[in-house]
Amino acid sequence: MTKISPFAPAVLPALPPIEGVKLASCEAGIRYKGRTDLLLATFDPGTTVAGVLTQSKTSSAPVEWCRTHLGHGMARALVVNSGTSNAFTGKLGEAAVKATAQGTADALGCLPADVYLASTGVIGEPLKAERITDRLAELTAACVPEGFEGAARAIMTTDTFPKLATRTAEIDGVEVTLNGIAKGAGMIAPDMATMLAFLFTDAAIEPKVLQSLLKPAAERSFNSVTVDGDTSTSDTLLLFATGTATKRGAPRIGLADDERLAGFREALEDLCLDLALQVVKDGEGLTKFAEIRVAGAESDEAAKVIAKSIANSPLVKTALAGEDPNWGRIVMAVGKAGERAERDRLSIRFGDILVAENGQVADSYREEDGADYMKQAELVISVDVGVGEGVSRVWTCDLTKEYVAINADYRS
Amino acid sequence: MTKISPFAPAVLPALPPIEGVKLASCEAGIRYKGRTDLLLATFDPGTTVAGVLTQSKTSSAPVEWCRTHLGHGMARALVVNSGTSNAFTGKLGEAAVKATAQGTADALGCLPADVYLASTGVIGEPLKAERITDRLAELTAACVPEGFEGAARAIMTTDTFPKLATRTAEIDGVEVTLNGIAKGAGMIAPDMATMLAFLFTDAAIEPKVLQSLLKPAAERSFNSVTVDGDTSTSDTLLLFATGTATKRGAPRIGLADDERLAGFREALEDLCLDLALQVVKDGEGLTKFAEIRVAGAESDEAAKVIAKSIANSPLVKTALAGEDPNWGRIVMAVGKAGERAERDRLSIRFGDILVAENGQVADSYREEDGADYMKQAELVISVDVGVGEGVSRVWTCDLTKEYVAINADYRS
Repeated sequence: MTKISPFAPAVLPALPPIEGVKLASCEAGIRYKGRTDLLLATFDPGTTVAGVLTQSKTSSAPVEWCRTHLGHGMARALVVNSGTSNAFTGKLGEAAVKATAQGTADALGCLPADVYLASTGVIGEPLKAERITDRLAELTAACVPEGFEGAARAIMTTDTFPKLATRTAEIDGVEVTLNGIAKGAGMIAPDMATMLAFLFTDAAIEPKVLQSLLKPAAERSFNSVTVDGDTSTSDTLLLFATGTATKRGAPRIGLADDERLAGFREALEDLCLDLALQVVKDGEGLTKFAEIRVAGAESDEAAKVIAKSIANSPLVKTALAGEDPNWGRIVMAVGKAGERAERDRLSIRFGDILVAENGQVADSYREEDGADYMKQAELVISVDVGVGEGVSRVWTCDLTKEYVAINADYRS
Repeated sequence: MTKISPFAPAVLPALPPIEGVKLASCEAGIRYKGRTDLLLATFDPGTTVAGVLTQSKTSSAPVEWCRTHLGHGMARALVVNSGTSNAFTGKLGEAAVKATAQGTADALGCLPADVYLASTGVIGEPLKAERITDRLAELTAACVPEGFEGAARAIMTTDTFPKLATRTAEIDGVEVTLNGIAKGAGMIAPDMATMLAFLFTDAAIEPKVLQSLLKPAAERSFNSVTVDGDTSTSDTLLLFATGTATKRGAPRIGLADDERLAGFREALEDLCLDLALQVVKDGEGLTKFAEIRVAGAESDEAAKVIAKSIANSPLVKTALAGEDPNWGRIVMAVGKAGERAERDRLSIRFGDILVAENGQVADSYREEDGADYMKQAELVISVDVGVGEGVSRVWTCDLTKEYVAINADYRS
């Protein structure tokens, strides 16, 4: 039944090992049959961690666990399961989280607080922790530095392809590596729930600095994509830094404004964007991928609100599906965003084609040109709202009958 | 191609005349062929008016006209066309509005400022004012007190049935009548744009008092329904009060807190809700109609934000379409609303069936009961978020493949 996304990569990127990171996955039978559904990643002592977690007010038990423990900024393990999200599971969910962390700590000889957890899948179904804890000894023994692709596969739910990306950067002349894996956009899936992304580097960066790098990178990547505007109870982005590059002469970075971080910051943002776009490109039922660019807003934040209003509008998204250059719906979405826009200075472009300017259709615009442009699989829609200097980019996909079929015909 | 909504009334309500109101409609050929598309309503001197207009930042030229002139609170005419919305039409749009108001004023012998305007249809296409002004003399002559059904039909775009409602109330022992007509929910339609509603009464109520009655009524009715979460550039609600009931002994009401308004206020809210629900029940492609009740929120406003988050969630709406009792998606929508909710005190009901309580699935809940309930055409979903006393109700419909087909397959 599941068609592979038309935007799936022809060849998966090969991720190099990162010293201090080992991974293993297995079929734990949590909900799925005949596929891996449990990931263990272990980290050398001294690994730092930063995280960005869902803003949902009904966040899952593992999200709450991460929120509690991120404060101390040190990590020895990451355990992720697919199949159930352990969200809205009350005291049972908390107990399952504690049992998993304790079991992992026992297997590795570390503290439970050094174990980070994520779960993705059905909401409301209690997680049987023993399905995980029973396998921890085996997984610990099986951990290898080459396990990234297996890890990316084990965390999939209705994703149609595993999401992997890698980058390098220099810190003070020493090359460091950044690897990342991710899965499923937002609440895109039939009662599945989660965008998960895990990043790994051998750079040596103190927790607070790591956090200061991760948050803006997430804002311009994972927080700038949308499939259906539905925010998961379980969204989790974690960045682990083993510090093993110090063996090759890399410095340990303790200050956020250290200029030696420039290349790393850029590589991190690039890695996040790569993974975030892969997530959109696996949106359910999609046939079009669109970049929404907003300029001329009162602030960057205002620009993002407007861009998201366009990117989430069912009428804009169905127009994309129908290859309809329906710019009136873009005007509508700008208007409903609630941010300042100067109607009589508003302009719209499809790719390089000027569609509207000064608050009305452009003299040069021909409907056939717009219709031709819309036939492309990857689209860029630019809007200038004419009030200031704020800019933003957001990425989205179309809303198709296939999306409705996947989400309506499925029975939980 | 257009199927009549399954929720269309078997018999249209018969609206009685209201002294001081006359209506006429005609085929002006603005965009549609073979159907009426222009409405003129005229009012006796002394008629007061109140209005609630779209919050869109790209609102249409007629909306801007109404916003400018509502201040003085007096009305002699209403002119409405369907086919084009005269939104995002720049200076041409403003000129068309002025020409229409002037033409109407000339025909009736009143001031242009006493003429209220609304347009609904395609965005971005200039309105040819002469198509309207050429017909004003004829329409003025044709105006009759019985014209309500014809009026409701002339303002339709992709509506599948005309929306009419009537109520009576007593003011100081004298019966007054309230009539209303409405069309199309939000941005539901293929590049059409507008929810329009016009209310008429013979009560004698000063403009400021009328406004103080209309705003809360709109908040609990038109502002509490959603089809796709897309806000039109043209939403317009106007209430005209001729004051002719004074001839039968009704008082002229000049103070908002006049206790004699109690019955009128209730009838007005009831009329607005009737029309608003008719609008939802004509949502594109709908098969389910759902009332979302939120209780236990921090405030009524917070409850409404949560209710709208549920009512607009594509995943909740596709679950309704699929008759899937997918309460995990409701938890998700509560969480993403951003308002306070106590996860471990949250409860959910489908009709009378307790689905979840204390942050987890209820012991008594059986999935078969939920699935049976979802087969009904009209649904009530209740959520208590466990933090306060705030309550709200919002009405919505499902998201079907038909909705996508209507909005994607259409070419503008």
